[in-house]
Amino acid sequence: MPLTSTLVEDLRKALSDAQAVSTENKELVSFAQSKYPQFPGSPHAVVVHASSTEDVVKVVKIANTHRVPVVPYAAGTSLEGNVSGSNGSVCIDLSQMKRVKEINVEDADVVCEAGVVWNELNDMLQEKGIPLFFPLDPGVGATIGGMIAQGCSGTNAVRYGTARGEYILNLTAVLPSGEVIKTRQRARKCSAGFDLTKLFIGAEGTLGIVTEATIRLVPRLATSVGVVSFPDPRSATLAVCDILNKGASIQCAELVDELSIRAIKLCGKFPMDWVETDTVLFKFQGSEAVRDDSSMIVQNVIGKYGGFGYRHVTKEEDVEQLWADRKNLLFGLLKMHPGHKGYITDVCVPVSKLPDLLLATKKELADRGLVSPLGGHVGDGNFHCFILYKTEEEMKLVMEVVDAMVHKAISLDGTCTGEHGIGLGKKKYLVEELGEGSVELLRTIKAALDPLNLFNPGKLYPEKPSKL
Amino acid sequence: MPLTSTLVEDLRKALSDAQAVSTENKELVSFAQSKYPQFPGSPHAVVVHASSTEDVVKVVKIANTHRVPVVPYAAGTSLEGNVSGSNGSVCIDLSQMKRVKEINVEDADVVCEAGVVWNELNDMLQEKGIPLFFPLDPGVGATIGGMIAQGCSGTNAVRYGTARGEYILNLTAVLPSGEVIKTRQRARKCSAGFDLTKLFIGAEGTLGIVTEATIRLVPRLATSVGVVSFPDPRSATLAVCDILNKGASIQCAELVDELSIRAIKLCGKFPMDWVETDTVLFKFQGSEAVRDDSSMIVQNVIGKYGGFGYRHVTKEEDVEQLWADRKNLLFGLLKMHPGHKGYITDVCVPVSKLPDLLLATKKELADRGLVSPLGGHVGDGNFHCFILYKTEEEMKLVMEVVDAMVHKAISLDGTCTGEHGIGLGKKKYLVEELGEGSVELLRTIKAALDPLNLFNPGKLYPEKPSKL
Repeated sequence: MPLTSTLVEDLRKALSDAQAVSTENKELVSFAQSKYPQFPGSPHAVVVHASSTEDVVKVVKIANTHRVPVVPYAAGTSLEGNVSGSNGSVCIDLSQMKRVKEINVEDADVVCEAGVVWNELNDMLQEKGIPLFFPLDPGVGATIGGMIAQGCSGTNAVRYGTARGEYILNLTAVLPSGEVIKTRQRARKCSAGFDLTKLFIGAEGTLGIVTEATIRLVPRLATSVGVVSFPDPRSATLAVCDILNKGASIQCAELVDELSIRAIKLCGKFPMDWVETDTVLFKFQGSEAVRDDSSMIVQNVIGKYGGFGYRHVTKEEDVEQLWADRKNLLFGLLKMHPGHKGYITDVCVPVSKLPDLLLATKKELADRGLVSPLGGHVGDGNFHCFILYKTEEEMKLVMEVVDAMVHKAISLDGTCTGEHGIGLGKKKYLVEELGEGSVELLRTIKAALDPLNLFNPGKLYPEKPSKL
Repeated sequence: MPLTSTLVEDLRKALSDAQAVSTENKELVSFAQSKYPQFPGSPHAVVVHASSTEDVVKVVKIANTHRVPVVPYAAGTSLEGNVSGSNGSVCIDLSQMKRVKEINVEDADVVCEAGVVWNELNDMLQEKGIPLFFPLDPGVGATIGGMIAQGCSGTNAVRYGTARGEYILNLTAVLPSGEVIKTRQRARKCSAGFDLTKLFIGAEGTLGIVTEATIRLVPRLATSVGVVSFPDPRSATLAVCDILNKGASIQCAELVDELSIRAIKLCGKFPMDWVETDTVLFKFQGSEAVRDDSSMIVQNVIGKYGGFGYRHVTKEEDVEQLWADRKNLLFGLLKMHPGHKGYITDVCVPVSKLPDLLLATKKELADRGLVSPLGGHVGDGNFHCFILYKTEEEMKLVMEVVDAMVHKAISLDGTCTGEHGIGLGKKKYLVEELGEGSVELLRTIKAALDPLNLFNPGKLYPEKPSKL
């Protein structure tokens, strides 16, 4: 009997719901890549739809016996091949583990399973009339477990920080041995030992599979948006640094360039007299007095940096439409370039270095006749590109630009990824960024926890240089 | 020749400054305990005053050769025996490594050595007219390296979080092998692998010796203080939860009890009509409009919880004096109880559970005729006690209370320490808090990085239960 059949048989025997174990070809393929498959993976041997931590333990123990790789999956919204299938792998699908087990309003926290989707959680809290929300905002549809595995963030990071901050109070993880641990209790602060919670944040499922977490909520506050035009990215960036250093209550600061403005004009619905130049959108949060105060700080600062045409959009429906227009600008771009796809990736540098990165990338694109919007989360120095291409030939040029952009970011004291993770796509840059010693330390910890290298193998850790 | 002499000789040969290697008895003893020696340590074999990362590397390599323990030391402000001397240990004193290597105003960060004292750094920034500060505020005199090793926080954690959050952008550490690594670059966000920076935060020098760090600054904002009385700790706590959930811009929320108010009345200098009852002091931050807005939120909420006598203190010198009076209340207590000492420790629970912890501890104290103020960082659920005692007999009773308090905190989903760390004092509670699996994971990582167990041995990791 081939290995796979006994593996599948063992899984079917172990799981109470035999339907949970699938060998349907469609699933073996679709669960082996993210929904935006920039890095297609090999089909899995089997997909298990887990419904509890106990299910995950059973699968891990059986995979251990059979010495087969285990790849976790939930929303499949990652971008760097972080959940691509390995050869003969068991995929553990956590997307059905969606229970919200506790909502502690006074303490502003929630205990939930890994498959809970962040925006659905926030909708649910709003429906219940709870004036709190979970502030990490990566791509819509991402799950809490995936967000933890990725060390995610999003536009709100200017105010709230990232998954590596203090919004994940604790988590439950199944280790490669099959043991279940909970990293911490529910108290907001804890200095009991080094931080086991953080060990799993950004480990991309290579050290453990997160099945449950306690996450912190924050007050849902009224929001308004300030929009201001700048002559170039450098003045826009320096203005943002200055505004943040003056203590304005800013939730997001997003830079959109000339090309993006054209795309918004094509597809956006909010009536706005856009100027086709580098533009910053600020989200202000709080009572009217607090928002007006922040808006005033922005107004007072921008003149020094050549900012012009400042508008403060305050009506709730206007704010929502304006923000949706910004988010939908990629559709506008694709409309302007029919038949194209966009290659998405991100890097991050100290905020003051962002203009150097943008200008260098602009040149790399122009040299190859390629097009991408050049903007991003300017409040954090996090830059996302969306490089348009049509042919295989163009795709090769895209990868040249990405390569140049990553090297440039690292040379500017930055990182090859601000929020998308390493996966397969960024492995080759890790030693350049962190140094061989730090990468070896990552490997040392991986080997201590997963000596058989079964948990999401091939991701995150670059191969050791061979000794010649 | 005894081991120590060759060790000392090797150190003197290796370090360029022979004066840096001390075997003076006074130093061997004083560096073997913190300045508040609740857990006295064995005298060191030798103390080395390091002046660079290279010095630390040399000492670690020599200690490795001689198989002697290495204990880092800087300000010596820790409380749980976190830097107590080990038998025959080499102490590496980092307090002379005080260089501030970069101040990046636009990016709001600083690159500095481990011996820099946080409050001195903030004074220096102010003197230079830089409108930024480092917001973690443990005991005055603590060093950046110690704060990282401890996973510290302080009163400002309500707004800014702790050392485990996002204020330590990267750090340079000397590993037990003598290898130097830098954990990350200077970008604000990074999702490149799991978080090596966090591995050293709260590890109490057991995994590496932090010699340098890049830390984030925040805007220095105008501050005012709101003071409000409550009938009991439960109403005070629930009011604070409600106020925080309404999004008031609060930097600190400190609860002081009846006894503390009496101590403040005895020693305080700010003219205030104190009521001897549970009292909350809020620090508001921002422009006048923002502070008034926060003050209004407090005023609107407290009535529901029986809060009374609300005052908003806004003049800068009044704010400073009032906050100093709160900080100095321990001197008032000692004045009320001449000849006594205070045993200091901390626990932390979910905020809503704080009243249960306070009331249970109050009973434990009363049962034994002991006295301690019962308050703390109510915005985080972090409770500090300062139990007064005079005799050895009373000290035993103190330890009974601490024991009961820690068990109670853990039973309330809390931790044996919110900000003081494990050291020697809290080791025995770690398995009860985290479970054997999580503690074993801490040990696994320790063994992978420090197989000879030379870095600050005996701290943090409780002994493995012997298999019978």
